Parts: sequence; C-alpha cells; structure tokens
Amino acid sequence: MSAQHTEFSKRNEQYVASFGDKGSLPMPPGRKLIIVTCMDARLDPAAHLGLKEGDAHVIRNAGGLAKDELRSIIISQRLLGTREIAVFNHTDCGMLTFSTNDVRSTVKDAAKGDANVAARVDAITFLDFKDLEQSVKENVAWLKNEPLLLPETVVTGWIYDVKDGKISQVV
Amino acid sequence: MSAQHTEFSKRNEQYVASFGDKGSLPMPPGRKLIIVTCMDARLDPAAHLGLKEGDAHVIRNAGGLAKDELRSIIISQRLLGTREIAVFNHTDCGMLTFSTNDVRSTVKDAAKGDANVAARVDAITFLDFKDLEQSVKENVAWLKNEPLLLPETVVTGWIYDVKDGKISQVV
Repeated sequence: MSAQHTEFSKRNEQYVASFGDKGSLPMPPGRKLIIVTCMDARLDPAAHLGLKEGDAHVIRNAGGLAKDELRSIIISQRLLGTREIAVFNHTDCGMLTFSTNDVRSTVKDAAKGDANVAARVDAITFLDFKDLEQSVKENVAWLKNEPLLLPETVVTGWIYDVKDGKISQVV
Repeated sequence: MSAQHTEFSKRNEQYVASFGDKGSLPMPPGRKLIIVTCMDARLDPAAHLGLKEGDAHVIRNAGGLAKDELRSIIISQRLLGTREIAVFNHTDCGMLTFSTNDVRSTVKDAAKGDANVAARVDAITFLDFKDLEQSVKENVAWLKNEPLLLPETVVTGWIYDVKDGKISQVV
C-alpha cells in the first residue's frame, strides 16, 4: 500500500489559498456547542449540519459514544464554555455488526497465543450495541446523569441516515 | 441561551439536496486511513485535508490524543481494514493552557464539597501537555509501540496551524 499521507500537503494548499480571516477565530466554540458523533468515514458532520470553523467542538469515536469521552467533554465545558451537546449515531453503523468477544478473538487469533496481547485486549470493552435508537437514548441519558457534567447542559440525540444524508431527532 | 440544535434540520436540508450518490458508499474507509485530531472548533479536517465522505475514519478528542482512543482504533483496523494513521495536533491548543489539577479544582469548587464529584474527577487524568511538537512525537511513538495495533500500520504525525490553515509534518 502506498501511503495516502503524501497527498495531504498538496490538497492542503487549496484550503490555505481560501483560508480568509479564519486565523482570527477565538479558541472557545462560538455556538457553545459540542457535537459527539461516530468516526465513520461516510459522515462529514460540518457539512451535514452546516457548521463552520469556530462553531463547535467535534468529538468522534467508534459509535459516537459520549461515555467514552468524559475527559474531553469536561474540558470543553469547564475550560471552553460549551453548554449544549448534540449526540449523533447513524444507520448502518459498524458497532451494530459485532460483539466485544468477536474483536477480542480477532486480535488474539492474529497474535497467536501472545499472553500480553490477550490480557490487554480482554481488558477492553468495545461498547458495541444492538439497537440504534436505543443507543442514542442511552447516550443522552448518560450525558444527563453524569455528575461531572454541568446540570444546565442542553442535550439532544439524533440519527444520521447514511443512505440519504438526512438527520432526525430522537430525543 | 437558546438551543442551537433547532437550526440543524434547516441547515441539513441543503446537504440532503446535494447528496448525490453518496448513499452507495461502503462502510470501510476507501483510503484505509484514520485521522486522529483535536475536537477544536477551528479545525475542519475534511476541508483542510481535502477528504471526501467515504475516505477516512476521523477520531477527535481534546488534544487529538491517540492513546485515549485505543478502542476505536482497534475496531477501525480489525473490522474495517484501515492500515494508516495520521495524527494531527494544532497550534494554540487548549491542552497547552491548563493542568489536570486546574480542571479538577474547577470541577470540585463548583460542586461545593460534593464527595462523589471530588472522587470521580480525581480519578480522571486530563492528558494536558506542555509542548506541541513533543505531543505529536509521543502520539506517534505510542501508536507504533502499542501491541494491540497492527505492526504494519503506517503512522505519521502533523501540526495544523490555526493562524493560516497550513499543515506541516513532524514525524
């Protein structure tokens, strides 16, 4: 495989050429907003929500799971002033297709009996889920009940449909 | 504060109107690539790297710290075939401006002696760092040395400059 990163600098030049006055944007998000969403390659949250540079913190991981990002959310709220969180899960998510045991087995099989690898991967919960709408609801409930988050936080939960680009609010 | 999320659906309509044939994109990232970068509101990685929907997994948290995202990176590699990771940190990062003790104090002061809150926040390491280039190098070194990641992974480390939109490769 040839490394894709060799193209980054070339493509970045176009962005730099039309950068405009974005260099004066302040550090705190202008909309006081956090988006939590999945790492899925088909999602471009800035594009499908119409967000511009400077608007919102964007936190992304496998599944779009807020409970895996408490560190980042606390920093966003306490140091950078965000007061609203919108959590997005999406249709056809990879997290619906496997179990934690599946991933552990895949990693252990490839490592051919390496005890260190086995112990390390068995310590990880991969947070797979079986129901998309339920996952959104659990995300929102977790955010509303976590004692380290600000009680006045506005929390909403959404589903993004990878087939047509539409969002719909669940909670 | 009025909730910003009321505008999401309106702005999403424009994205849906020009969605084209993106509904047929497969789940695995076409470039077999993971981008790890900061949640910072000023960063739009798809825009500044010229990535399109379907190209790459994008993982974002406070600081752009790979070690906080092992769960997601394993899923990306083992279930969805990625083989390259590019880590981005950026200038003027909030992570350079505080210490873990600062955040813990802020949270505890606001909770006015709540022992549960104090115990929970004292258990979190906020992963602040003091040197940007050093952070990129540590990110890359961590990725290259983590036994649960594929040894053939191509790893590069970069800095994004929020003042002019330019990227530069560190490692």
